[in-house]
Amino acid sequence: MPNMNIPTLRRLPRYLKALVVLSGVGQKYVTSAEMAGILKLDETLVRKDIAMTGFTGKPRVGFAITELRNHLEDFLGLRIRKDAIVIGAGRLGQALTCYHGFEPHGLRVVGLFDNDPVKMGMRVNELEIMPLWQAPALAKRLNVSIAIIAVPANAAQEVADNLFKVGLTAFWNFSGHPIKMPPPAVVQNEDLADSLAVFSYEVVRNLKMDEKV
Amino acid sequence: MPNMNIPTLRRLPRYLKALVVLSGVGQKYVTSAEMAGILKLDETLVRKDIAMTGFTGKPRVGFAITELRNHLEDFLGLRIRKDAIVIGAGRLGQALTCYHGFEPHGLRVVGLFDNDPVKMGMRVNELEIMPLWQAPALAKRLNVSIAIIAVPANAAQEVADNLFKVGLTAFWNFSGHPIKMPPPAVVQNEDLADSLAVFSYEVVRNLKMDEKV
Repeated sequence: MPNMNIPTLRRLPRYLKALVVLSGVGQKYVTSAEMAGILKLDETLVRKDIAMTGFTGKPRVGFAITELRNHLEDFLGLRIRKDAIVIGAGRLGQALTCYHGFEPHGLRVVGLFDNDPVKMGMRVNELEIMPLWQAPALAKRLNVSIAIIAVPANAAQEVADNLFKVGLTAFWNFSGHPIKMPPPAVVQNEDLADSLAVFSYEVVRNLKMDEKV
Repeated sequence: MPNMNIPTLRRLPRYLKALVVLSGVGQKYVTSAEMAGILKLDETLVRKDIAMTGFTGKPRVGFAITELRNHLEDFLGLRIRKDAIVIGAGRLGQALTCYHGFEPHGLRVVGLFDNDPVKMGMRVNELEIMPLWQAPALAKRLNVSIAIIAVPANAAQEVADNLFKVGLTAFWNFSGHPIKMPPPAVVQNEDLADSLAVFSYEVVRNLKMDEKV
């Protein structure tokens, strides 16, 4: 598989969503120009992104919608079932456990762990919150390799290190503190503050434009 | 202000974090090569990103750390106080209300609203959950222009439309359903499923490499 760049990867789900809508209204083909129009992207960019995944359209008619959709889902591994455990049952951990957008993409949360005795046994989305020390055994029993980290920033690295030791290899980290793991681990650090920076830039830019009027 | 591209904007907070760490250990200057090494980015990219914000380094010594930090914070509008209300007091709305990473970037949640009578009066991070119909009045009284949308997907557009009508102009949308607003509104649609696609690609790629060994 080619080493894709992140901005391209982040656009692929947007193409997917558009394809789902289009096939819903019975359309069979879509051109890169149409796709670009729908998503307000540059046409060349759309063509390049899709070409990078190894899919090619037909001259004049464009991309076959169902095929492209299947292709992108396979390319992103969305049709492979990926079981995960969530570490940290605070508000964010609970929100991630209940998030409806994951299952259509093959991610299923099969365990939720915390070390706060008060939370033990509470149910979140059919899952009982379990003590953190039981995470390795459950991960092993259910053959889970993915941990979603939703613990406080200062605990994230240690929690991930311990899970790595017992065989977990993929870490989706929402603690706000970037973690580093040795290969072959896969790490994705999310930071809402990064998204906030983009939003803040646009908001403040808008305010300044107002002032100039 | 120049029209920055999103990937650059998303990298600026990472530079900021590195600058904070470096100034914490007393370093005065940093070169783009050092910065690239710390963040595992290409040196040319680092230089371009920072140049696009209008900041220039000094030959040989690199970027003055404190100045660059202040410059980037101003550039992103992070030092301007931005008050926001959160709409939707479910798990995600509560998590966003309590998120510690926003305040250092100037964003403060001053109100939390929901339309579930059971939640009224509950306290989240010193804020009392209030009925949704009171949001416009509070926004007006406190001069709030930013709404963080954490309602279910199917309610997001309507909620945002109503807030736009009463003068809110910036929408940070976590509902999972992309919303569209007329100018001069600023909209940022977040979708965890997009991040999941990137993560999924890496995880599945890793699995496939394992199989080949």
